Amino acid sequence: MVIVMKPQATAAEIEHVLRRAASMGAQTQPIHGENHTVIALIGDLTQVRRQTFDAMAGVLKTVRIQDPFKLASRTTNPDGTTIDVGGVRFGGDQVVVMAGPCSVESREQIIQSAIAVKEAGASVLRGGAFKPRTSPYSFQGLGEEGLRYLAEAREITGLPVISEVMTVETIDLVAEYVDILQIGARNMQNYGLLKEVGKTNRPVMLKRGISGEIQELLMCAEYILSNGNMQVMLCERGIRTYETATRNTFDLNAIPVLKRASHLPVVADPAHGTGDWELVPPMSLAAVAAGADALILEVHPDPESALSDGDQSLKPERFADLMHGLRRVAEAIGRSIASPAGETAADDAKERDGAEREKEVVLA
Amino acid sequence: MVIVMKPQATAAEIEHVLRRAASMGAQTQPIHGENHTVIALIGDLTQVRRQTFDAMAGVLKTVRIQDPFKLASRTTNPDGTTIDVGGVRFGGDQVVVMAGPCSVESREQIIQSAIAVKEAGASVLRGGAFKPRTSPYSFQGLGEEGLRYLAEAREITGLPVISEVMTVETIDLVAEYVDILQIGARNMQNYGLLKEVGKTNRPVMLKRGISGEIQELLMCAEYILSNGNMQVMLCERGIRTYETATRNTFDLNAIPVLKRASHLPVVADPAHGTGDWELVPPMSLAAVAAGADALILEVHPDPESALSDGDQSLKPERFADLMHGLRRVAEAIGRSIASPAGETAADDAKERDGAEREKEVVLA
Amino acid sequence: MVIVMKPQATAAEIEHVLRRAASMGAQTQPIHGENHTVIALIGDLTQVRRQTFDAMAGVLKTVRIQDPFKLASRTTNPDGTTIDVGGVRFGGDQVVVMAGPCSVESREQIIQSAIAVKEAGASVLRGGAFKPRTSPYSFQGLGEEGLRYLAEAREITGLPVISEVMTVETIDLVAEYVDILQIGARNMQNYGLLKEVGKTNRPVMLKRGISGEIQELLMCAEYILSNGNMQVMLCERGIRTYETATRNTFDLNAIPVLKRASHLPVVADPAHGTGDWELVPPMSLAAVAAGADALILEVHPDPESALSDGDQSLKPERFADLMHGLRRVAEAIGRSIASPAGETAADDAKERDGAEREKEVVLA
Amino acid sequence: MVIVMKPQATAAEIEHVLRRAASMGAQTQPIHGENHTVIALIGDLTQVRRQTFDAMAGVLKTVRIQDPFKLASRTTNPDGTTIDVGGVRFGGDQVVVMAGPCSVESREQIIQSAIAVKEAGASVLRGGAFKPRTSPYSFQGLGEEGLRYLAEAREITGLPVISEVMTVETIDLVAEYVDILQIGARNMQNYGLLKEVGKTNRPVMLKRGISGEIQELLMCAEYILSNGNMQVMLCERGIRTYETATRNTFDLNAIPVLKRASHLPVVADPAHGTGDWELVPPMSLAAVAAGADALILEVHPDPESALSDGDQSLKPERFADLMHGLRRVAEAIGRSIASPAGETAADDAKERDGAEREKEVVLA
Repeated sequence: MVIVMKPQATAAEIEHVLRRAASMGAQTQPIHGENHTVIALIGDLTQVRRQTFDAMAGVLKTVRIQDPFKLASRTTNPDGTTIDVGGVRFGGDQVVVMAGPCSVESREQIIQSAIAVKEAGASVLRGGAFKPRTSPYSFQGLGEEGLRYLAEAREITGLPVISEVMTVETIDLVAEYVDILQIGARNMQNYGLLKEVGKTNRPVMLKRGISGEIQELLMCAEYILSNGNMQVMLCERGIRTYETATRNTFDLNAIPVLKRASHLPVVADPAHGTGDWELVPPMSLAAVAAGADALILEVHPDPESALSDGDQSLKPERFADLMHGLRRVAEAIGRSIASPAGETAADDAKERDGAEREKEVVLA
Repeated sequence: MVIVMKPQATAAEIEHVLRRAASMGAQTQPIHGENHTVIALIGDLTQVRRQTFDAMAGVLKTVRIQDPFKLASRTTNPDGTTIDVGGVRFGGDQVVVMAGPCSVESREQIIQSAIAVKEAGASVLRGGAFKPRTSPYSFQGLGEEGLRYLAEAREITGLPVISEVMTVETIDLVAEYVDILQIGARNMQNYGLLKEVGKTNRPVMLKRGISGEIQELLMCAEYILSNGNMQVMLCERGIRTYETATRNTFDLNAIPVLKRASHLPVVADPAHGTGDWELVPPMSLAAVAAGADALILEVHPDPESALSDGDQSLKPERFADLMHGLRRVAEAIGRSIASPAGETAADDAKERDGAEREKEVVLA
Repeated sequence: MVIVMKPQATAAEIEHVLRRAASMGAQTQPIHGENHTVIALIGDLTQVRRQTFDAMAGVLKTVRIQDPFKLASRTTNPDGTTIDVGGVRFGGDQVVVMAGPCSVESREQIIQSAIAVKEAGASVLRGGAFKPRTSPYSFQGLGEEGLRYLAEAREITGLPVISEVMTVETIDLVAEYVDILQIGARNMQNYGLLKEVGKTNRPVMLKRGISGEIQELLMCAEYILSNGNMQVMLCERGIRTYETATRNTFDLNAIPVLKRASHLPVVADPAHGTGDWELVPPMSLAAVAAGADALILEVHPDPESALSDGDQSLKPERFADLMHGLRRVAEAIGRSIASPAGETAADDAKERDGAEREKEVVLA
Repeated sequence: MVIVMKPQATAAEIEHVLRRAASMGAQTQPIHGENHTVIALIGDLTQVRRQTFDAMAGVLKTVRIQDPFKLASRTTNPDGTTIDVGGVRFGGDQVVVMAGPCSVESREQIIQSAIAVKEAGASVLRGGAFKPRTSPYSFQGLGEEGLRYLAEAREITGLPVISEVMTVETIDLVAEYVDILQIGARNMQNYGLLKEVGKTNRPVMLKRGISGEIQELLMCAEYILSNGNMQVMLCERGIRTYETATRNTFDLNAIPVLKRASHLPVVADPAHGTGDWELVPPMSLAAVAAGADALILEVHPDPESALSDGDQSLKPERFADLMHGLRRVAEAIGRSIASPAGETAADDAKERDGAEREKEVVLA
C-alpha cells in the first residue's frame, strides 16, 4: 500500500502515519517527492486497514498496490483451473455451451427444451426454478417442482443441469437436484449465501452483478473459495451503463481481463448481456472469439409464450444455426465445442435419430 | 402499454399482435402513422406480459405508459406518509437526523457515540451489528452482541435505534432489538428478504442499490408494501458512475424525484453517498435544502480507529458543528430539525447537562 | 509517479525500467514488497511519459501521485480566485444568479426576459445566440443578430451578459458583444477553442462535459489558464449515468470537490443538470447549500413556446419565488445573493418600480 | 410521438395539448386508458417540438416513436452502403484492417510502420498528425509535416491513409493529403466540423464519443450525410462506464446494433476501446466475429518510445500474429480480410519480398 500525504502535511502528521502503520505490523518506507511525501507500506499488511489512513489528518489518499483477492488470483494456479461436471469439462480446450429456457414452466416445456438443445449440441441444460423478479406481481418460478422436472430432463437426456439458488435455506434443496449452483447477478454480494455455497461440494457459477466491478466479482469468488469450494466459474452477463440501445452493456472485455487476472473458468451470458435475441448470435460468436470457456444461452420452444425473458430467447432452430457458427469460430481460434457428455463427434448422427425417438417417448 | 411495429411489419404480424393482446384481456387501439403502426393497449393489463410482444416478429419495441408500482406511488397517498418511531416522526415538517458509528465495535464505543450524537441533537442512533463486507477477510460485525449494546445505548439515551438486517433468518432477532430495520444497498433486490420484512410490523429503511434505478427502488419498496408493511422509508446513498473523484456519486436529484413519485419518506446518506468525510457537511446541508426528510450520518469518537468506514465518519465535534448548520438550512426552507424524542427546544440546555452526567455514569 | 512491477517481473525488466526513468531525468527509489517490486519516481518528472512504462514488459501498472494540473490547483491560490464582471463578483461571499432564456429567439423575448430576471434579482443575463443542437434539423440560433439583441438587453437593464462561443472563428465576434464567454459541455475538450479563449481577456465559464471527469475538467481549465487567461469559472451541469429518471445526473458532489481541488469559482446549472423544470428549484437551493459560487438558470416568459429547452425553463413568477428561497438558504450558510451591479439592498423597492417603467418603454 | 398525460390532468389541459399539436400540423388521436390519457400524434410531425409538450401543465412525459435520424437509417438503404477508398472496399464481404502508429512522430517511423503493417496484411495506413491531448503539456502532433510524411508513406506502399481532422480551418489541408478523414471521439458532437466535412467528397470515419449514445452517433452521422457526403463510416472506440479494469468499456454490442439500425459500414477500434495492448488481440477477433466491417489498430515499431498511446500499441510481430488469427475468424463467419489494394492472395508471397526491398530503399 502507498499512502500519499497532502502537500501541506506537517512533520507530525507524517510521523503519526508512520507510527500507526508500524503498530499494525507494516514496515514503512517514506519517499520525499517534490510536492508530496509518499509512504510505502511493505511486509505483512494483513492487519493494515486502509480506511484508517484515509481518515487521518494530512493524508491525501491511499493507493492499493496488491490485489485484495488471493485464492481467485491467477498466481495461485497459473495453468488455469478446470472443473468437471458429469464428464463436461469447463476451463479446458473445449468451449461448453449451456442452454435451455429462462424458467422451468412445465414438465413438457423443460423436457422438450432439453431434447432440443441437446440435439443442437448443448452439453448442459439450464432452467430456473427459483426466479428473482423485479416486480412482486410477476411469475416467481415453480420452486421444488421445477427442480424435479429439471432432474427428470437430465435423466432423459443425460445433460447435467444448472439452476439458480437464491437463499441460504434452499441451498441443500437445490444442490440435491442440480449439478451446478448458479448465483445470480443480484446476489453477487450476498455474502451469507456465498459463504454457504462455499461449504458445499457443488460447482458454482457466480454471475457478475449489474454494477459489479471485475475486482469485486473476484472478491466475491474469494468468499466461496475461502470457504473451501474451489469449483467456481465466473460469468459475465452485462453491466449497467448510460447506453439504452441494449438492455445492459454486455462487457466482453471482462473475458480476457478475467482470464488474465484469475485461474477460474469464464462463462459468457449474451442473452442477459444484451436483452435482445437478435443480438445473441453475433455476441455469442464474439464471446468465443474473445476467449470465453463457456456460453449460457436462453432457448425456448415458443419465446412468445415464455413466462420470462422471451424477448432474449432463441427458438430451437435459431439455436441450432448458432451452434454451427460457434463450432467454426471455436475452430478458428484453436478450440472446439464440447459434445454432450459421453459422446464423440461420431455419435452425432445417431444422436439426432435418438432425439427423435426420445421426443416420441416423452411427449406421448 | 404501447407496441411500436417495425416499418416493414406485415398485416399478418400486426393482426397477430392484436389477437394476442386481446387474448390477454387488453383492449387494443391501432394507430397507423406515416412509418409505423402503433398499437395502444388499454383496459385491464394485469395479464399482459410486455416481453411476449418484444419476442414477436414485426415488433420494434414496446413502451410502458403506466408506472409498474402501485402502493409506493404518490397517487395512493397524495399527502405523504409519516412514520412514527418512538415519538420521532419521519415525513412530516421536521427533518430527522440519525447518527452513530458505522459498526458497533464495543459497548463503550456505542454508548459513548450515542451520548455524543444525542447531545449534538440527533434523534435516532445508528450502528451496524451485522456488516456486509466486500472482503471475506474484513471485520464482519459483532452480531447479536452488537444488538444488545445498541439496546443498552437506547436505554441510556432514549434514542430509538436503526440497524441492518441481512438475512431472512435474522429478521426476528434484529427486530427484537431495533426500532428501524435497515435493508442495505447490496440487498435492495434481495426479494426474499424484502418479502419477509414486509411481514413484520417494524419500520423499514430501504437503501437504493449502488446501481439501482429510482424506479427499481420503488419496485423493491413495493415488495415490502405488498406484504403488508406500510412503514417504509427510501434512502439515497450514492450510485456508481464513471466519476472516481468521489467513491460513489451521491445522487441528490433522487430526493425531489422520489418525493414527487412516491408518498414515502426519503432519507439521505451523504457518508456512503460520497465516501469522504470532508464532503459530508456540504452534502448534508444540500440534502436538507433539496427536501430530504431525514439524514443518516456516520459519527465515530475516533474515526482513525474505526473498524469500518472511518474515512467517511465525522468526529463528534464536527458533527455538532454540522447540526448547527442543518438547523439554519432547515429553517431557511420552512422546516426544523427534530429534537430527540420527548424533548422540546426548551429542554436543550438541560439536555447538555444531562449528557454530561450520563457520561460520568456510563463510563465510570 | 509509482510504477508497480508484475509479481513475476525479472531483474532485467526492473533494471530496464530504472534506466529508462533515469534517462528521462527522474530519480528512482525501488521498494521491494512481498509480492511486487514498486518503483517510486521523484524529482523532475516533466520529461516522464507514463505510457512509456505501461508499454514495458514486466510492468503491471503505473499510478500517478501528483495532480496533472498546476495552474488550476488550489495550491497556486489557496485563498480562491474572484472574478469581477461589470461589478458582479464571482467567487466571493456573494452567490451570483445568472438567468435568462436558453436561446435568444427575438428582440422582444430577450429584453422582456432580461427585465423579468433583473426584477427578480438576477445579476447576469444569459441567452444563447449560437446553439449546438443534437439534430441538424433543429433551430440553430440567431447568430450575430442574437448577440446584438443581448447587447441591447444589457444596455437597457445594466446586466452583464453571458453567451456561448462554439468555434474559434467566432471568438472575436462573441467577445465583442458579451461579458462572459461560455464554453459548452460538448466543447469541454475542444482544445483548439480552449487555447484561443485563453488568449482573450474575457472571463470564461467552462462547462463540464456530459461524461467529463472532474480531473479532466480541471485539465481543460488548464488549457485556458496556461494561455494567459486566469478568469475561468467551472460549471457543473449534469453527467451521463445509467439513471434515466432525470435527463442527466446533476452531480452536486462536484461543487465541494472542485472547491477543494481548485481556486476557481464554481457555477451550478440545475436546468441542464436535471432537464426538468420541476426539479430546478430544490436542486438550486441544494447547490447553494453545497457551496456553489453562482447559479445559471433558464427563465423563459413562455416555456411552451421556447425554441429550445422549454421543458427545463422556469416561468418568471416561479423564478421570482425561487429567488426568495435562494436568499434564505444563502443567508443560512453565511452568504448572500449578489444584487444586480450598482445596486444595494436599499435599491430593491425602487428597482421594482423601475422595472415596470422599463417594460413600458421597451415594449411600446 | 405519444404524449402521456398525468393521471390528474384536467380536460382543459388535455384540450390545450390537442389544440397545440394541431397548430403544429399534427393529427391527434387521444386514447383514454384506465389511469392516463395518452395522445398519439401522427401525420406530418416536422413542425412538432417535443419539448413544447414536456413544458405543458398536465403532461407527464412524451415518448418518441420514430427514429430522429433519416439518412443514416437502414431503411434508406437496406442493402448496406459500401465505400471504396483507393480500391479498398468498406462494408462489403471483406473486413478491412487499418493499422499504424497513433501519432506520426518522424518520417522514418511512419514509413517503417507503413511497410510493416502492409507486410502483415493491413490495407490502410493510420497515423495522427493533429492530436487532441488531455494535457496542454503533451505532444500535440507534427501538423502538416506529419501529413506530408503520411503521403510519402502512401506513395511508397500504395496504402491509402486515414488521419484525424480537428478543426474546420484545417479540413482542406488534411483532405489534400489523406484518403479518409477521421473525426475523433471528442469531436463527435462538434457540429460545425461535421457540417463542413459533409461538404467535402472525402470518406469520413466518425468515432463514437466516449459517452455517446448509439442514437446520438447516428444523429451526428446525419449532420454529415445531410450536407451531401454519403461516404460515412461509424467507429466504436469504447465508452465511459464505472468499470476501471479497462481504460474504457469497448462496447462490442454497438457493432450489431449499428448494423441493424444503419446502412453505414462499422469500424471497431480495440486499442482505444480497451487502452491495453494485451487485450487488443482477443477483442479484435471478437469484433470481427460480431460483424465489424473494419478494424483500426495501433502498431508501433517501438511502443515504449511512442509519443502517444504506447500502452495500447502492438509491436509489428504481434500484429502479424494477430492478422493470422483475424483471417481464420473472418473465414469462420464467411468473410475474408481485405488484401492491400491491387493485390490478390497470389501476390502474398511476392509482397513479402517486395517489402524487404522497400525497406532497404527507404531506410538507406
